[in-house]
Order: sequence, then structure tokens, then C-alpha cells
Amino acid sequence: MIFKTDIEGFTLREAAAEDVPVLLSLIRELAVYEKLTDQVTATEESMKLSLFGIRPGAEALLGELHGEPVAYAVYFHNYSTFAGRLGLYLEDVYVKPELRGKGMGKVILSYLARLAKERGCARFEWSVLDWNEPSIRFYRSLGAVPLDGWTVFRMTGEALDRLAGI
Amino acid sequence: MIFKTDIEGFTLREAAAEDVPVLLSLIRELAVYEKLTDQVTATEESMKLSLFGIRPGAEALLGELHGEPVAYAVYFHNYSTFAGRLGLYLEDVYVKPELRGKGMGKVILSYLARLAKERGCARFEWSVLDWNEPSIRFYRSLGAVPLDGWTVFRMTGEALDRLAGI
Repeated sequence: MIFKTDIEGFTLREAAAEDVPVLLSLIRELAVYEKLTDQVTATEESMKLSLFGIRPGAEALLGELHGEPVAYAVYFHNYSTFAGRLGLYLEDVYVKPELRGKGMGKVILSYLARLAKERGCARFEWSVLDWNEPSIRFYRSLGAVPLDGWTVFRMTGEALDRLAGI
Repeated sequence: MIFKTDIEGFTLREAAAEDVPVLLSLIRELAVYEKLTDQVTATEESMKLSLFGIRPGAEALLGELHGEPVAYAVYFHNYSTFAGRLGLYLEDVYVKPELRGKGMGKVILSYLARLAKERGCARFEWSVLDWNEPSIRFYRSLGAVPLDGWTVFRMTGEALDRLAGI
């Protein structure tokens, strides 16, 4: 289903397996912006399996301007034991740099906020790089609050194998 | 299925709907330790629905010492676009204070690390309060790495309603 927005020619729709090449290309653009290209190991095959296989791990939204892909979001449901409810977690949101400032990002976040409410979520959350001041200002302007005082720990590779006893 | 551990009398098993009262009581103990009791709005009803309903939002593990519940973990799958794969996210891990230092926490993390590997996850992640130095030392000793430079933003309540256009 195509969701028309208030921005002329800008539409949103759920991405499908056929969109994987376009999505991966936009994901790589985000990684360039975030200076994290070394972390991108996703392939079209891994994305097809993990996003559009039997048990999708996340959902993807594609933003198009006059039919051309220019933005995307990937999100999934997290869980709060304290709330006893699901939340919506936005893994990525990206708008092509030359199209920023037109409100496309806000349209995407607003669409997802409505989805979160419709699905009964208590929270809408995402992570931001601390140097990304334009985004932080934007998120604060919407009423989002930084969870200061918390740090995410990550275990991968050999440390994960060791802990797993492999 | 009951998973026996190397700690005498300490077993792990998947929690079921009947365990909700015990789980909620342990969740409240964790909230006391984290000084976040004001955030606990979960009820037995909301937990039964969200953890053991038609579409469970997370999985729960119960640790028992000679059959008495003394520890728990709640976890779900997150997603990395850069990896193009699912990850395992540990929302809570808790061991009763009087039983700490016996290795129960490590047994739980190790069980989950193995589960993450079996399910093909690229990452195992969780969040920690910055003042919780004993936990931070423990996580670092296992090879987990803090994701410095990232902050989680959260939107709830009126700000979420406003963004959703409600």
C-alpha cells in the first residue's frame, strides 16, 4: 500500500524482497554518512533472508520521490519488562543528503509513531551518534529524550564464541 | 526443558505463563536495585499478553536453585542493517543479591550466547547503567565492549501522541 504524504510527490510504502538492492544501496549511503562503512557486511542474500524470509527480523519502509527511492527506515519491536509491553525501535532512518530540510524525516518518524500507537507500543526509540548534532536537535525538537546514564555493551566474534563455549 | 548447570542445584528453564507472578516479582526486585521502581507499570495481565500471548514480544528464562526461583533473564531479537542479520538483545538479567558471586550470571549469559550462535546471530547486546561498576567490570571481563559515542533517544506519552498526530 502506498501512503501519500503532505510533501508533493513523496510517498511511503513497505519495502518488499524486490527492493533489497535499492535498500542495501541506501544502507551503504547511511554508513558513509555515519563513517561506519567498515561495519557493513550485509549482502543482498542476507537481507532477503533476514528481512523477507519466513521469520522477518525487522520491517522496512521505503520513501520515494516521484517514484524514485530517496529515503528508508528499518524498524523492529523491542520489549520493556518495566512497562510489560512492546516498543518500536527504529534501527535506521535515512534521507538522501540533497533532499534534507524538506520534512521527509519528520514524515517518516510521524508515520512510525502512528504505527507504534496503533500496535499498542509504550515507547518509540532509536540511537544517534553523539557527534550528529543536526539529528540530535531535530529529535529533541520532537520531544524525544536522551537516555543519559546508560551504555550499550556488545559482544561479537571470538568473545561471543568463547562465552558460548564454542 | 530444564537445563542443568555446573552450579550445584542451579537450573535454567524457559519461563511459561504460570511463572508470570514470580517473574514480575523478580522484575520489581531488579527495578529496586536499578533505582527505577517508578518506571514499573507492568501488570500480570500485560506480561501474560506480551510475553505469552499469540505474538510474544520477548522470551524469558528462569533460574532456579533447588527449585526456588532466584534469577531471570528477558531477551528478544534486534536487527542490524549493517550486518544484515538478527542479533540477540538482553533486556534484563538479574540474580538475587544474596546469591551473587557464585557464577549464576555468567551461566545465564553463556546460555544466551550459545542460543545466539545457534540462531545465527551476529551480536549479543545489552544495556547497563553507568554507575553499575560491578556489572561493567564483569561484562568487560567477558570481552563485551561498550558502544561509546551512541545515545538512545526515547519518545513516550504526549510527545509520541503529538508526533503520531493523535
